[in-house]
Amino acid sequence: MIVSESELRNFTEQVFKQMGCPSQDAVLAADVLLRSDLRGIDSHGVARLSGYVRLWEKKRINPKPEIKIVHETATTATVDGDSGLGLVVAPFAMDVAIAKAEKYGSGWVSVRNSNHFGIAGYHALKAVAKDMIGFAMTNASPLVAPTFTTERLLGTNPMCYAFPAGKYPPLIVDMATSAAANGKLEIAQRSGKEIPEGWVQTSAGAVSTDPHALKQGGSLLPLGSDREHGSHKGFGLSATVDILSSVLSGANYGPWVPPFVAFIDPLSDLPGQGIGHFLGAMRVDGFRPVDEFKQHLDNWISRFKSAKPVHAEQPVIIPGEPEYEAEQERRVNGIPLVDAVVDDMNILAERFGIEKLRAYTA
Amino acid sequence: MIVSESELRNFTEQVFKQMGCPSQDAVLAADVLLRSDLRGIDSHGVARLSGYVRLWEKKRINPKPEIKIVHETATTATVDGDSGLGLVVAPFAMDVAIAKAEKYGSGWVSVRNSNHFGIAGYHALKAVAKDMIGFAMTNASPLVAPTFTTERLLGTNPMCYAFPAGKYPPLIVDMATSAAANGKLEIAQRSGKEIPEGWVQTSAGAVSTDPHALKQGGSLLPLGSDREHGSHKGFGLSATVDILSSVLSGANYGPWVPPFVAFIDPLSDLPGQGIGHFLGAMRVDGFRPVDEFKQHLDNWISRFKSAKPVHAEQPVIIPGEPEYEAEQERRVNGIPLVDAVVDDMNILAERFGIEKLRAYTA
Repeated sequence: MIVSESELRNFTEQVFKQMGCPSQDAVLAADVLLRSDLRGIDSHGVARLSGYVRLWEKKRINPKPEIKIVHETATTATVDGDSGLGLVVAPFAMDVAIAKAEKYGSGWVSVRNSNHFGIAGYHALKAVAKDMIGFAMTNASPLVAPTFTTERLLGTNPMCYAFPAGKYPPLIVDMATSAAANGKLEIAQRSGKEIPEGWVQTSAGAVSTDPHALKQGGSLLPLGSDREHGSHKGFGLSATVDILSSVLSGANYGPWVPPFVAFIDPLSDLPGQGIGHFLGAMRVDGFRPVDEFKQHLDNWISRFKSAKPVHAEQPVIIPGEPEYEAEQERRVNGIPLVDAVVDDMNILAERFGIEKLRAYTA
Repeated sequence: MIVSESELRNFTEQVFKQMGCPSQDAVLAADVLLRSDLRGIDSHGVARLSGYVRLWEKKRINPKPEIKIVHETATTATVDGDSGLGLVVAPFAMDVAIAKAEKYGSGWVSVRNSNHFGIAGYHALKAVAKDMIGFAMTNASPLVAPTFTTERLLGTNPMCYAFPAGKYPPLIVDMATSAAANGKLEIAQRSGKEIPEGWVQTSAGAVSTDPHALKQGGSLLPLGSDREHGSHKGFGLSATVDILSSVLSGANYGPWVPPFVAFIDPLSDLPGQGIGHFLGAMRVDGFRPVDEFKQHLDNWISRFKSAKPVHAEQPVIIPGEPEYEAEQERRVNGIPLVDAVVDDMNILAERFGIEKLRAYTA
């Protein structure tokens, strides 16, 4: 089913309003989810809407949070999200970072007591719109085992860096620090296919090509897959995200990060509050004139686009370009939703007494 | 041959003085190299001393640089290294970052017109000593091909994040953004062994297990090794390092980064000056009291140290711990040097008329 942007946006806003979010927050939360669907990152958009609703039903999401700065210097701050939607808490925190950068050149905010914040790229791109370099990270439900271990101690903990270019779209690196995301396992499960070695291990730490290994007590592997190929680096990056997001802010870290799925309860004796994010903004003109920077970043991108491909039919991919192209296309032609997501949305429509999604007609 | 720290330090200082470095710079540059040898990162220590000398002979290193800030805001700055040793330029830049952090909570410095800066960890740890979080990155000679391409457009571009702990040593992630470092190929070359798939590709972009493939026109692969295992993420991280270090400062980037080896001349029509670094410092107490942070980081480390290992004889490795242990051991027992490095040092001794290194006797 293909749905227009405005139809899907309107539907999503209504669901958040029904959860009790103030109108402005519902509009913002829907904007974050829609941006993910528009950019072709289907796993992090409205596909997660029912997940947020279930967390709210369990009272693990507060629809009317009092988000506030609890500690700060000129360029740093800790924000408490009051158990709100990460989709609302993270934009608040990024606005704090940007305001500090406007005054002092850079701004850095660590966030506690939040929930999942959608795609990291949404938040980093807010800085890019102001000719700043944007940084966004978050920790997440533990699914990844550190190198040499069998315990799920880390989330897929994404890191995102975004840079404003001139004639090209922003260059944006937005990546999980695991070898593969959970969504890729789900696709293989549906199609009954094996997965490559290096994505998951069994509960005993053995190599596995079974897409069900994770559900059977196994774990995802850090970027690098095994020690020989640098999995200790993926582990180190994931640790960095966890510490900047949560040890620094007072959120939960490691195995204590509350799961996104509502049917698994958080552990007891938590060392912090909610999940954590880390957001930053740095003014380009704090280093050199914006025009000069953009001209050189354009030159960088041009040179890399001309890189000799291994196979002529698969040219190099500049980070952020596929997502930018998806966004241009989907704004015009609508957003495709898989059946499972449409079913979820129909259940939400009934649950809240709102009109079902209608297919897009050009 | 095993050499005492003081013997090796003294020798290295003399070589830098013979290059014409002011005494204070020679002491500092030797300190950066020695720290690498002490920490067991033998590839980045005195093993590179003759390489710096050869660059100086080619007039690509200025032994008496006027290092200066050329652009700044309260918390950001661009530093011009005046073609100096990165071993001297980077500590200058990190001091600027730390001074800004002391005043405003954080400080960020992009550096142009520099040379190789040794181990990233040295610089990041300067911030840790002040109860700050340290960041250090640099670009480097192009050896790595972006995903789907056969061209060497990026260096092994390391990134480093360092955090102060309480009862444990600092947690420090210091990693090349390639799947494997060049040094690992050299070890395999010497022992005549094949290397694992995923470290290098041939000049045509084919999979190779030949440790000589890089010398024969091939390239190193980004962390992740191939697209299926996330090499686009390694590419994205390396791009991030390149942009923060050089597009931001006005240094050279991508294929234009001047090679560390003196026998390869830099390309013509360079878009910038020298190589680039990016250094940062963020006060922990800009976010929460230092004691609280350290207590929770200790808790994080304790929990990860207790992670169930796949094999009982190989426990989890906390980032930075092996290097810390090497440092404690080598300060007492001396630093082992392989024959090739001893030969290099003897040549330097003759070249500059200084006394040859003597073996350590306890």
